[in-house]
Amino acid sequence: MTSAIPSNVESLVAELQKLPGIGRKSAERMTLALLARPKEEVAALSAALTKLQSTIRYCRECFGLTEAVLCAICRDPGRDHALLCVVEDPLDLIAIEKTGAYRGVYHVLGGVLSPIDGVGPHDLKLKELLSRVRNQKNHFRELILATNPTPEGETTVTFIREELKGATLTMTRLAYGLPAGADIEYADERTLTQSLEGRRVVREAKTKLPSRS
Amino acid sequence: MTSAIPSNVESLVAELQKLPGIGRKSAERMTLALLARPKEEVAALSAALTKLQSTIRYCRECFGLTEAVLCAICRDPGRDHALLCVVEDPLDLIAIEKTGAYRGVYHVLGGVLSPIDGVGPHDLKLKELLSRVRNQKNHFRELILATNPTPEGETTVTFIREELKGATLTMTRLAYGLPAGADIEYADERTLTQSLEGRRVVREAKTKLPSRS
Repeated sequence: MTSAIPSNVESLVAELQKLPGIGRKSAERMTLALLARPKEEVAALSAALTKLQSTIRYCRECFGLTEAVLCAICRDPGRDHALLCVVEDPLDLIAIEKTGAYRGVYHVLGGVLSPIDGVGPHDLKLKELLSRVRNQKNHFRELILATNPTPEGETTVTFIREELKGATLTMTRLAYGLPAGADIEYADERTLTQSLEGRRVVREAKTKLPSRS
Repeated sequence: MTSAIPSNVESLVAELQKLPGIGRKSAERMTLALLARPKEEVAALSAALTKLQSTIRYCRECFGLTEAVLCAICRDPGRDHALLCVVEDPLDLIAIEKTGAYRGVYHVLGGVLSPIDGVGPHDLKLKELLSRVRNQKNHFRELILATNPTPEGETTVTFIREELKGATLTMTRLAYGLPAGADIEYADERTLTQSLEGRRVVREAKTKLPSRS
């Protein structure tokens, strides 16, 4: 059969397909779109790719992404360095930063414990977290365990709690419940259970109901 | 606020977001995945991008993708050069080639007529199609109008039919009906109507039913 796809098109399609969430069809569509783009735009993408790995590294302190030894957050004296938020990966850090609601620092684990996938404590930055917390110079007041609400996330939280049993700092988890804009009718049972368990008082009872006599 | 995203990460995310079907989150996820890849793999992607536009052009005859003046299909003497399939874009050509069921040649329009989007006959390779068909040297026997089953696809077919009213060649369209593996229960009304209208005889009646007397 005649090959309908020139080899240089095929090789780009093949490379794009290696990206997460990109199937054959998406890779073909992306390639065709790139072909139609101005030369400078494709050159910009190619250059951004080349620069990525040569300039980006993991922060020595928190393992977030940075172009320096320490990331911008760890270097910032305006942040609360006694408040430490533990996340799975840099995307979680970015998501939390975007809220603007957090002023502490981070620790990026680089994943979660998952015995099934063969991910153990040594595959993550757990040792680094423990020695960071245990280091008296750091004076952490609170540790927010912000792993995803998945079985692996829970396992990782249990591991950290166990290891830091002796530590005096407060450990917290993110609130679980209904996401903003959700419809109770369509919420899954676990979410609804968690939102019931975590319910908050809106108004305290002013007077007690008369007791039955 | 401290910027959580190093500028070289941000610029790759921004470039990836320009690709069709890629949102902010997907671009972030892709960037993070690329960071974790071996250097050679990212270099291969970057190289494939650079090569794409410098080596790929549109075939002079059919406007499919090629690395030469004429594409591999147009150059192939083993193909049926009297059978011409008109498609919207190179991805449709690739899809038809993959079936292995077509041995003719193609004409890639580069889109469809869409007055709403301001796409007129001059924005497509329609003039080239008409002169290709009218050229006596080409001896086309059949023209398969393989645009998508959309209003724009239909408009384009109508335009071509009108323009080639005087031509002697056969014009056909792809069959419309139920896709393979479909469930009649869930088929939309238009598809079901088209599959009823286009129904095929499986067995001819052998004897006529006795007429009512």
